[in-house]
Amino acid sequence: MDPATVYTHQFDNGFVLVAEHMEAVSSASFTFLLPAGAKHDPPDGLGLSSVLLDWVFRGAGDLDSRQLDSLLDGLGLHRDSSVATSHAVLGGALLSDNLPQALDAYADIIRRPHLPAEQLDFSRQLVLQQLASQDDDPHSKLMVELRKRHFPEPLGRNPLGVRDQLSALGSSTVTDFHQKAYCPDQTILAVAGCFDWLKLREKVSSLFAHWQGQIPPEPKLGSAGPKTGHLSQETAQTHIGIAYGSVPLTHPSYYHARLAVAVLSGGMSGRLFTEVREKRGLCYSVSARHHILKDRGTVLCYAGTAPERAQQTLDVTLNELKRLPEAISQEELDRAKIGLKASLIMQGESTTARSACAATDYYHLDRVRSLDEISDAVDAVTVSDLLDHLREFPPTDFTIVSLGSEKLEIPC
Amino acid sequence: MDPATVYTHQFDNGFVLVAEHMEAVSSASFTFLLPAGAKHDPPDGLGLSSVLLDWVFRGAGDLDSRQLDSLLDGLGLHRDSSVATSHAVLGGALLSDNLPQALDAYADIIRRPHLPAEQLDFSRQLVLQQLASQDDDPHSKLMVELRKRHFPEPLGRNPLGVRDQLSALGSSTVTDFHQKAYCPDQTILAVAGCFDWLKLREKVSSLFAHWQGQIPPEPKLGSAGPKTGHLSQETAQTHIGIAYGSVPLTHPSYYHARLAVAVLSGGMSGRLFTEVREKRGLCYSVSARHHILKDRGTVLCYAGTAPERAQQTLDVTLNELKRLPEAISQEELDRAKIGLKASLIMQGESTTARSACAATDYYHLDRVRSLDEISDAVDAVTVSDLLDHLREFPPTDFTIVSLGSEKLEIPC
Repeated sequence: MDPATVYTHQFDNGFVLVAEHMEAVSSASFTFLLPAGAKHDPPDGLGLSSVLLDWVFRGAGDLDSRQLDSLLDGLGLHRDSSVATSHAVLGGALLSDNLPQALDAYADIIRRPHLPAEQLDFSRQLVLQQLASQDDDPHSKLMVELRKRHFPEPLGRNPLGVRDQLSALGSSTVTDFHQKAYCPDQTILAVAGCFDWLKLREKVSSLFAHWQGQIPPEPKLGSAGPKTGHLSQETAQTHIGIAYGSVPLTHPSYYHARLAVAVLSGGMSGRLFTEVREKRGLCYSVSARHHILKDRGTVLCYAGTAPERAQQTLDVTLNELKRLPEAISQEELDRAKIGLKASLIMQGESTTARSACAATDYYHLDRVRSLDEISDAVDAVTVSDLLDHLREFPPTDFTIVSLGSEKLEIPC
Repeated sequence: MDPATVYTHQFDNGFVLVAEHMEAVSSASFTFLLPAGAKHDPPDGLGLSSVLLDWVFRGAGDLDSRQLDSLLDGLGLHRDSSVATSHAVLGGALLSDNLPQALDAYADIIRRPHLPAEQLDFSRQLVLQQLASQDDDPHSKLMVELRKRHFPEPLGRNPLGVRDQLSALGSSTVTDFHQKAYCPDQTILAVAGCFDWLKLREKVSSLFAHWQGQIPPEPKLGSAGPKTGHLSQETAQTHIGIAYGSVPLTHPSYYHARLAVAVLSGGMSGRLFTEVREKRGLCYSVSARHHILKDRGTVLCYAGTAPERAQQTLDVTLNELKRLPEAISQEELDRAKIGLKASLIMQGESTTARSACAATDYYHLDRVRSLDEISDAVDAVTVSDLLDHLREFPPTDFTIVSLGSEKLEIPC
């Protein structure tokens, strides 16, 4: 596959368009990052941004809710919207011929939603249902608790909010939030696929260049929760979550951090898989991943295991994390590099993956990395670089949460 | 994207190679369908095929378990293996340059696994853990129960089996099963991506053409479970599953059946979404999908909702299913067609989706449908054809299962 050509344009109001042109595809994907994530929710209105994200689709521009759904489905659009810590993410994938009409519709959804008062309660109910669904899934419930304890407020918030606060949300609070947080300033639209750049820029300009508004101020950081905790629940498995600090995307040793996690958890020969699952048959699922926010990187680990093996699973997992800076073999590093690069190339063939990555890149770096740049940076890391990085940023100071019938012993 | 070129070759021993050549990709994906699915498990050894699927990866050919994992990860292979009703499915995606080495390894895994007795218990424990994880997920647990009740034995089996029978499995039983069910007769290998057909056929011939063995006999069908049931459990949501009969892929009105489900559940303007979720805010998740086995098609529906709204959700959903044959508008059909065709084209850009579809097509039809053929067949369906189909095969004779704290009333 030829390297993608990347175009970038920032309009005077702060709105950014980045676009990756991919040959030989008929589809196009887009990702809007709007600065309307969970961290911007009012402290007594947690979950507001999730309610709003459903509400904006209930009629916009000249179309009511039903007409809008029909229009989008009639474009063959696969929608994918969610609220993350920093952003409301509105994404879609469709045939590239239909991209201009989809952008017309999304300009209405973002800038001119009807927000009909009589439908706010439906949006609220759906978010309450999502919360209930999360409550029924011990893995999700555990990871929500892990983030809440690991990150300082408001970075560890559950985007679905809190039941009582959702129930109390009034329509004017949500409408006001829309006015402020759905704004052009630092909003990013990434497009990947087959398009004519000049026409795309012109279309986006006509829809978003004259929009006005300032990004809401960055919330002040509070404190994090207690570092360890247990959720008592009668479950078939015991679920374990571990978090520790790492470096963000802007950090010079970002690729070292990614490779370190790949040594732990890349493929079936990763250390966690080998030590916890293959050698000891301790659990069905064990994994670690590198998670980034603008100012920090974090490694999030999860293991699900039988209650009688949970303590051993926790002990073995922590031991693997702690001993990572001691030694890494050339073979382990080579495999980690191959794994990361293969994922990259496969992502490079998907318009959906590329538009999401381009948007994220721009948010963190003010530019989009090419696949070659990433590949070169990964290749350049040596075993000794990697160990230096791990000694500077060792896995330590863990946040540990478990969920199950019995509490585990947390080693010091 | 250019239409893919499809190649097919059947070796004398019954092994089939199908390959879709895709221009402009660097990746390749493969899918093995081996006739070693859950329906072939011995009646007192349910879950055997899942245990075996883990066990075959614990060393094969000249490599022990660890060396094999290292080799596969060193190829940048993303593995994806699972047991379905009819098959063990061994799939992978990687850079096309590494495809020949991956096929070498998979020939060993399939034909020459070590099946080390001392590791059987690890494989067993992992399947037991997967079962526990399924037990902790009410949605999965419900759908397992729905299938068990809807399909005649052995078609409704949970591929993960039954706890007590898993615990009792001896290594010779599993080894014998491997001897019989991992066989060339009717095994399908599908490849999609960038490759040289003659070289690929030569490689696959050298690995699989001289393999011998007959497919195990098709199990006789028994009876299905009671049509309705309730699993009593304290959950935040009530979970509802509904199943009813449809037509298989070989049936002349297969595309009618797919379009009927798309009218119910395609996008946000589908009837279930509109009537249950958008108009009434009744639940977070409601969907229907068309599921095929060789001799039958089935529609599987799911809804997750608040306990106090569960009865209404069930009533409204059943009402939408029952009234489907009464009328369908041209607009609904047009949207359903666009949705299906957009999905097709987007799948056509993914080597993983294409290799899986090619394998499934060959299993059902003894050939691979082109995207154009599917698109033309979808286009040809008229509203009146669709209603005729629905009157011949109306949604009726429902299997209904719920999971939650209170039992629902099942309407006659």
